[in-house]
Amino acid sequence: MVTGRSEDNSGRIRLGMVGGGNDAFIGGVHRIAARLDDKFELVAGALSSTPEKSRESGEALALARVYDDFKQMAIREARLKSGIEAVSIVTPNHMHYAAAREFLKRGIHVICDKPLTSTLRDAKKLVKAAESADALFILTHNYTGYPMVRQAREMIANGKIGKIRVVQVEYPQDWLTEQQDFKQAEWRTDPVRSGAGGSTGDIGTHAYNLACFVTGLQAESLAADLQAFVPGRQVDDNAHVLLRFDGGARGMLWSSQVAPGNENALRLRVYGEKGGLEWEQEDPNYLWFTPYGEPKRLITRNGSGAGEAANRLSRVPPGHPEGYLEGFANIYSEAAEAIRAFRTSASPETAVMYPTIQDGLNGVKFVAACVQSSARDAAWVTLD
Amino acid sequence: MVTGRSEDNSGRIRLGMVGGGNDAFIGGVHRIAARLDDKFELVAGALSSTPEKSRESGEALALARVYDDFKQMAIREARLKSGIEAVSIVTPNHMHYAAAREFLKRGIHVICDKPLTSTLRDAKKLVKAAESADALFILTHNYTGYPMVRQAREMIANGKIGKIRVVQVEYPQDWLTEQQDFKQAEWRTDPVRSGAGGSTGDIGTHAYNLACFVTGLQAESLAADLQAFVPGRQVDDNAHVLLRFDGGARGMLWSSQVAPGNENALRLRVYGEKGGLEWEQEDPNYLWFTPYGEPKRLITRNGSGAGEAANRLSRVPPGHPEGYLEGFANIYSEAAEAIRAFRTSASPETAVMYPTIQDGLNGVKFVAACVQSSARDAAWVTLD
Amino acid sequence: MVTGRSEDNSGRIRLGMVGGGNDAFIGGVHRIAARLDDKFELVAGALSSTPEKSRESGEALALARVYDDFKQMAIREARLKSGIEAVSIVTPNHMHYAAAREFLKRGIHVICDKPLTSTLRDAKKLVKAAESADALFILTHNYTGYPMVRQAREMIANGKIGKIRVVQVEYPQDWLTEQQDFKQAEWRTDPVRSGAGGSTGDIGTHAYNLACFVTGLQAESLAADLQAFVPGRQVDDNAHVLLRFDGGARGMLWSSQVAPGNENALRLRVYGEKGGLEWEQEDPNYLWFTPYGEPKRLITRNGSGAGEAANRLSRVPPGHPEGYLEGFANIYSEAAEAIRAFRTSASPETAVMYPTIQDGLNGVKFVAACVQSSARDAAWVTLD
Amino acid sequence: MVTGRSEDNSGRIRLGMVGGGNDAFIGGVHRIAARLDDKFELVAGALSSTPEKSRESGEALALARVYDDFKQMAIREARLKSGIEAVSIVTPNHMHYAAAREFLKRGIHVICDKPLTSTLRDAKKLVKAAESADALFILTHNYTGYPMVRQAREMIANGKIGKIRVVQVEYPQDWLTEQQDFKQAEWRTDPVRSGAGGSTGDIGTHAYNLACFVTGLQAESLAADLQAFVPGRQVDDNAHVLLRFDGGARGMLWSSQVAPGNENALRLRVYGEKGGLEWEQEDPNYLWFTPYGEPKRLITRNGSGAGEAANRLSRVPPGHPEGYLEGFANIYSEAAEAIRAFRTSASPETAVMYPTIQDGLNGVKFVAACVQSSARDAAWVTLD
Repeated sequence: MVTGRSEDNSGRIRLGMVGGGNDAFIGGVHRIAARLDDKFELVAGALSSTPEKSRESGEALALARVYDDFKQMAIREARLKSGIEAVSIVTPNHMHYAAAREFLKRGIHVICDKPLTSTLRDAKKLVKAAESADALFILTHNYTGYPMVRQAREMIANGKIGKIRVVQVEYPQDWLTEQQDFKQAEWRTDPVRSGAGGSTGDIGTHAYNLACFVTGLQAESLAADLQAFVPGRQVDDNAHVLLRFDGGARGMLWSSQVAPGNENALRLRVYGEKGGLEWEQEDPNYLWFTPYGEPKRLITRNGSGAGEAANRLSRVPPGHPEGYLEGFANIYSEAAEAIRAFRTSASPETAVMYPTIQDGLNGVKFVAACVQSSARDAAWVTLD
Repeated sequence: MVTGRSEDNSGRIRLGMVGGGNDAFIGGVHRIAARLDDKFELVAGALSSTPEKSRESGEALALARVYDDFKQMAIREARLKSGIEAVSIVTPNHMHYAAAREFLKRGIHVICDKPLTSTLRDAKKLVKAAESADALFILTHNYTGYPMVRQAREMIANGKIGKIRVVQVEYPQDWLTEQQDFKQAEWRTDPVRSGAGGSTGDIGTHAYNLACFVTGLQAESLAADLQAFVPGRQVDDNAHVLLRFDGGARGMLWSSQVAPGNENALRLRVYGEKGGLEWEQEDPNYLWFTPYGEPKRLITRNGSGAGEAANRLSRVPPGHPEGYLEGFANIYSEAAEAIRAFRTSASPETAVMYPTIQDGLNGVKFVAACVQSSARDAAWVTLD
Repeated sequence: MVTGRSEDNSGRIRLGMVGGGNDAFIGGVHRIAARLDDKFELVAGALSSTPEKSRESGEALALARVYDDFKQMAIREARLKSGIEAVSIVTPNHMHYAAAREFLKRGIHVICDKPLTSTLRDAKKLVKAAESADALFILTHNYTGYPMVRQAREMIANGKIGKIRVVQVEYPQDWLTEQQDFKQAEWRTDPVRSGAGGSTGDIGTHAYNLACFVTGLQAESLAADLQAFVPGRQVDDNAHVLLRFDGGARGMLWSSQVAPGNENALRLRVYGEKGGLEWEQEDPNYLWFTPYGEPKRLITRNGSGAGEAANRLSRVPPGHPEGYLEGFANIYSEAAEAIRAFRTSASPETAVMYPTIQDGLNGVKFVAACVQSSARDAAWVTLD
Repeated sequence: MVTGRSEDNSGRIRLGMVGGGNDAFIGGVHRIAARLDDKFELVAGALSSTPEKSRESGEALALARVYDDFKQMAIREARLKSGIEAVSIVTPNHMHYAAAREFLKRGIHVICDKPLTSTLRDAKKLVKAAESADALFILTHNYTGYPMVRQAREMIANGKIGKIRVVQVEYPQDWLTEQQDFKQAEWRTDPVRSGAGGSTGDIGTHAYNLACFVTGLQAESLAADLQAFVPGRQVDDNAHVLLRFDGGARGMLWSSQVAPGNENALRLRVYGEKGGLEWEQEDPNYLWFTPYGEPKRLITRNGSGAGEAANRLSRVPPGHPEGYLEGFANIYSEAAEAIRAFRTSASPETAVMYPTIQDGLNGVKFVAACVQSSARDAAWVTLD
């Protein structure tokens, strides 16, 4: 019974939040993730685009300081002696850029939901803003926080499956099988707020990021066949994508929001010259390792066969499942490590990893390329 | 995409902790569980039986008040205006009674790890202490906090599988397959600190509690065949138990710590006149429902087919797994609901449920009956 | 792509059948099993207890010779120059003894369905008859014919999991959850034709035989709690059994015909000092091997990790599933190997294995002991 | 416990075989499949391209008549009064056309392994030959013989999942991960004998056929990215294919022979406006049905929820798995029904279905289109 690292609340990081008001979903997830390992303390927020809702939501959360809008918050917090050190941005996609810019330029670290922005133009501007800022930028591609995803990445980096040939990644859901009008569905299918990609932006970017993170490869080009199956839908709800990676590996990516029976069935399979690895988000504590010519092996989180890259992100013994919130919390924990190191101008431990703004740019490029390829009848589009 | 209740930190409950110092395992779990939904604030502790270790551990956790021992803590906190309202007791089993008594008699609510006590005598005394106390007692039989366990209980209560005939429950592990000397193993195999039961006390009580919680039945008698397979071991590491429930249902319970390949494979199967239900702790977001004569159905947490009893304890959408810590946190959340109601002498909502001291007494009786039965060559022993 | 042994029809064995008429189930299974590898040729039969039905059934199968009853068949076939060399007995249990005796005493090999007989008295007489006969007796405990069952047995014999400690075996079904009146249900719940055991005789014997076959152990004693849950049922439809094996291993056996959602969920788990093995009949091409302290491994039929004991009974490449009929056919193939060797007074290859009359006697003793133990409130009963 | 149709050997069909000598794999499979339900009798063969091997193999199988080559066999059998009525062609692909033609033109029914031919030119000629022949042509796309595949087809035809939107089909294997020189590998990677497609021809055609069979749709166009990963390999060993079906459904097809850990992992998932269906060849007795907004249901072969289309091809009760050989045998059984009806110029029952020469032509067109598309950098190619 080996247990991973325990919580650590010495010097909690003062955190603010933009978006995430009462009726939002992902804001609550960020708050739990920030709280789980006790490394953050949520003290301020501009939780809604309407001031009253922001105030109501802030009171419900007993925040010390509630603001009417994110700009006001950035300005005032930057002046406070004990103002926030970091901010979580959990608004719809089209507001990420404007909000992040305000905090970055005032030296406040940004933890931002994905996709990075709703347009490629915004993404490029944000990269510049981040590069010139005296602050860190962390993107919550949360699935990279699962211990067994780290395990897979480490095994590939260590050559356990040899040179990679084939990458199969998919993220099917079913929640948009029919027309939906509730808030989560509404903005995610609005190209103005969500961006030009529908399933590609919301979940395809997760699948693409996961494939790149685990394999260490980048896609050179893609060919995409997008569809909006539900009548009236303005963005894709199903995407079939062919991928060509640097080094010669080939891949397929499927994202769908119209596949009944699939909840969040993100699944990655990678095959190399010597073996394979298979992982599923809905059963995240397990990793199949299939060395060629030997019996398949099931590696379990914190169990036999799991290595340091996975164990350092694990809290409880094998067989006691950790899930989505723990994986999300791992991104926050990694962010905390980096922010603490930043306080003293030190580098975090080399093991510390989190999705960066460059990953975010890559995701937005992926969506843009999918849309462009599909408009050209699935012609190949280069991802520079 | 339906989401459950969100966090609620209005009026956080001031919490203390007894046990759970640096090298303990379950203390960290309780702290995360208490923190997850932001309903508690850990402010005081007597974290170890040695004062220095208690202080070191308390500092590492940045506790406001650290005590040398639990009695001192109970006395002083009771006198403080803003002293703790509740205490988590996470020591080895043999100290539960003495610690709990000190807090109960001063009107401080007790959240206690299982099994209730190391002896039946202590258990009975603690029941009396609780009955006469002006405080609540919550036992962390954490598996009852899993949403799909609640779902199963609700379905049985609603007659979905008819009158129950057969109950199969098991909890195999493998971590004691060989002699182990690290701290967690050491006290758990010491009859003085753990109690007369080994696997029966540590995990058999969980299995037994789960079976009773879900079915709503009580066992009338049992016949147990216990073994200590590892040479030199003083308590059972494998238990085979026959169960007879009130109303005529029959059951089997298997607990083992010497079953290689099993991590925490707690599994419950219940069959009635009209159908069955099957649940596994290692894959806790799913519940099989098998109505007789129809195809099997897979009910998912927060997904189609899940009802209110499960959904109210769920935080994220279906397909995003919740795990052990979330289930544990649900017990803390239920405790918080009860404690808040207690503040105003109100009753909590009827949906609020947590394992009580009576469940704890039943667990200790179960262990005592197993040991007694096994000593008499697996003769039937009544559980009054 | 390694393939196992191919069919071999040189010198087909002339086969007769007793029972297995039009409306029987298991007769058809035996015929397919005999035919699959082309080592038998069905030429004669007494397929029903009523002469007309026997003739009708025989004509439907285009048998060369059809008899009114088994005794007539035994007498005449024994006199024919090219009479049958072997007979399959697939009647209800209470007729096994009388039928088998007639053929054995005339030197005709008997392939008999299980359980061996409906009473212990008959079983003992049949053992004597077989011992004094110049013919082989093969019992179709068909699950021992699955390749991965052979694999498990070989691994245990080779010490792969060390000295055995725990044996968990179960065989739940649901087809008798309610009162049934069709033919298969009717005789299986009639103690006169089926024997004193219900689920114990019909499927418990399979589970017990499988556990003994794989582990190489014999049970020394058992304690059984039998129930007839369905009102009016005269034999057990659920059995909970504790087992003590020679050498100190302990076990549990559960058989049930009232567990909704279970079709033929025979499952065996064996744990030793060094590792474990787990196998399920409904997914028979896989065997879990769990060496202590290492990742679990999935051994596949004819795939990596499978050894000669399994591969010799496999026909198609890994990933192309073989099932129940192939496993059953393996028993017939083993019987054919033995019968061909018998023709020349030779011994079959050492790898050839099939359930013997002694296994049959053990099964009947198991049922008798279960019934006796349950009548004495689950007291221990010795299996001599 | 419902059982399907039993064997029926009235009027066995006299069968010959071309190819399938001692060292072949698929010949043995065809023979078992033909024998399983006792509707065929193998009496003649030209089992190898070398006369001696043909004779040796024929003797080993105790065939009544063995020929040096298929042409000789066709001529002589056609003249015999009790010559063969049907022939199984199980040679490498490039010989299918020449062999089939000889038998078809003499009125002997042909049961031919897939793919239909090694070239599109041959395929078209064979279609003409079949059209003008007084004989049936059956292609052994054996996976269409699995009961749960029939179940899926029936459910889709009955509108259970609504209008189809997305089709995901894949067939990964790992046996060609490295260079292999044994016979099965050698001819399958030789474009002269196998055809221009490697994985596409050997297994991609199966996947494509299965998708079309189950959905009732035809692909209008495809875009394919083929690779030969193993150095020196002359045909594809991995194929990524985008599909556009008539009616607007979109699909992906993946075939691979270099995916370690995959044995014969053929898997089909179909999603419509109202629900989905998922089936895996390695676990063929189960079919997931996922009606939108309801819990997933697991339909089992011969069990609750299975309909007549599946049950008529099932031999044993639910929970007793049938596998690859039984599925293959179902194609032979369907062929037998059709041939028997042909004897009397009748039509077989409407339920009788088998893959036709048109399916074969479609498969060869699929391979040709994949090769053509890949040569044009995955441009869309129309499948007329």
